[in-house]
Amino acid sequence: MSNTYTIAIDAMGGDDAPGWPVLGAVLAAREGGARVLLVGDQAEVSTELAKHDTVGLPIEVVPSEGVVVEGENPARSLLAKPKSSIAVSVGLVKKGIANAAVSMGSTGATMAAGVIGLGLFPGLERPTLGGPFIALAPHTTIIDLGANVDSKPSQLLSFAALGATFEHIYHGIESPRVALLSVGSEEGKGNRQTKEAFPLLQKSSLNFIGNIEGHELFMDKADVVVCDGFVGNVLLKFTEGLAQAAAAFLSKAMGADALAVQQIRSLAGAAEHAGGPLFGINGLVIAGHGRASSEAIAASVKLAHSCLDNDLIGQMRLDLAAVIGESA
Amino acid sequence: MSNTYTIAIDAMGGDDAPGWPVLGAVLAAREGGARVLLVGDQAEVSTELAKHDTVGLPIEVVPSEGVVVEGENPARSLLAKPKSSIAVSVGLVKKGIANAAVSMGSTGATMAAGVIGLGLFPGLERPTLGGPFIALAPHTTIIDLGANVDSKPSQLLSFAALGATFEHIYHGIESPRVALLSVGSEEGKGNRQTKEAFPLLQKSSLNFIGNIEGHELFMDKADVVVCDGFVGNVLLKFTEGLAQAAAAFLSKAMGADALAVQQIRSLAGAAEHAGGPLFGINGLVIAGHGRASSEAIAASVKLAHSCLDNDLIGQMRLDLAAVIGESA
Repeated sequence: MSNTYTIAIDAMGGDDAPGWPVLGAVLAAREGGARVLLVGDQAEVSTELAKHDTVGLPIEVVPSEGVVVEGENPARSLLAKPKSSIAVSVGLVKKGIANAAVSMGSTGATMAAGVIGLGLFPGLERPTLGGPFIALAPHTTIIDLGANVDSKPSQLLSFAALGATFEHIYHGIESPRVALLSVGSEEGKGNRQTKEAFPLLQKSSLNFIGNIEGHELFMDKADVVVCDGFVGNVLLKFTEGLAQAAAAFLSKAMGADALAVQQIRSLAGAAEHAGGPLFGINGLVIAGHGRASSEAIAASVKLAHSCLDNDLIGQMRLDLAAVIGESA
Repeated sequence: MSNTYTIAIDAMGGDDAPGWPVLGAVLAAREGGARVLLVGDQAEVSTELAKHDTVGLPIEVVPSEGVVVEGENPARSLLAKPKSSIAVSVGLVKKGIANAAVSMGSTGATMAAGVIGLGLFPGLERPTLGGPFIALAPHTTIIDLGANVDSKPSQLLSFAALGATFEHIYHGIESPRVALLSVGSEEGKGNRQTKEAFPLLQKSSLNFIGNIEGHELFMDKADVVVCDGFVGNVLLKFTEGLAQAAAAFLSKAMGADALAVQQIRSLAGAAEHAGGPLFGINGLVIAGHGRASSEAIAASVKLAHSCLDNDLIGQMRLDLAAVIGESA
């Protein structure tokens, strides 16, 4: 049986805040195992909470002031709004009041709040975002998904180490196969960045299987696919757009209720709801998509449990240090 | 009415050569308007030709020796095999015997043969590959698709100019909207490469509309989407793999003959058959996918006609010179 954890949910983050985060908190609390701290505007959050039957549920409201929204400069806005919902949520983790924080708000703000509030693992310059997002390759972690562009080869090595620990803990894979996303399978194929990262990965103790190409993402060749955040982010958004466009296309041909349309929509959902723990921060912070539903928010609380049960963060820090140590 | 052109088809290039190229030539010749020169091993090609009714069709065999296959170093292999089918095909264009060459063989070899045989436009270091490949965005040219990685910002400007001429001539768009593929819509978003290319594109006389993100490829925001060949190639292959995987997924749920599966397969086809004229070479050379069917080969002959009728190459050279001139 899982332990009981306290999870801070940023009630003001996301497109339908505070409605969806509040409902997500209620769903998570009903499932049991989590005490939820809803961080947000006291009046607004209470109004939302009153819409649901919360008798006996372990939910508390923690007041905050202001929100850092998408498009703002994250670091500057956090400085200007030290009591914003994301800053307070991460602060609860820092103080040991919460075991993890979950936010569907601006990913940049969540990352910045994590770095400022909790600090980075030794050897990292920035946190990383990675995880499975292709429903047709649901066990493959792609990293980085947009947190780091123009990454140095040594950063790609870090992504690989962090992704491998995630696959190990999250999918239970003993020795995750790590591949480098490139434009040809041979070592010499790729751009400057991948050509320089290749030998670093090869020398490491990671289970590095070499380059893979775009179509091979669907062939279960690798558990961790390493790429620069520019490429990862383009792929993530491309997949989201493609799935939506394919669903609309099929819907026109056979009606919106057709099974095929629903199936394609379900594939689209994976990209839309992509989210997961920030990698590289000294504490568990889960960032999700602004359009994440209340079910996705409740699922993030569950994900937090599993990460905490398995000490994802501690294990990542150890594994990263080992891999960085080898290459130093 | 279209003029009659002579098209050289590399009969030895592609996965099913010479069978499919020969049938493609027969189909093209039956449609009329093209005299076809089939370049390949005389005996093999004649054997294939004998399987079809070619009475009265304007098809001739031009003998060649050897093939440059995928995986070989293109330039070195061309030097070693000066009478290879691709070298002879391009040579026919150089000598004015053929108006265009079509090959489904190694794209690297086709590009190298084009550069060596016909030369590059002034101001280019390498030819470029671009064109529509997403069936859900069939009028959008994405450039570069893999010919150039680690492109300089000035190269991205060239891609934009070449892509705009292609859209103008191929899709008849008066002032094609050019966008830069990036990870955020604002000018400051992106990697070093896109941030440096942005002002070059903005200053140019092209109809530059700014950055677009991955999902916006499906929203008809731009006619030409410019990216580094690393990103373009990953996207091209990713799309191919995704469409195949999605068709297999739906096929499992509802049977391989279901309409939805056929529809998704047709979407997959676009990526598989992606191909088009090499951009930046002083002559018309059309490169296609190794798995291209005979119908796709016949369609390439048609594409060659339309490019020749509209003097695509001459117009591209003029438009590129104008755009490079502005930025000099």
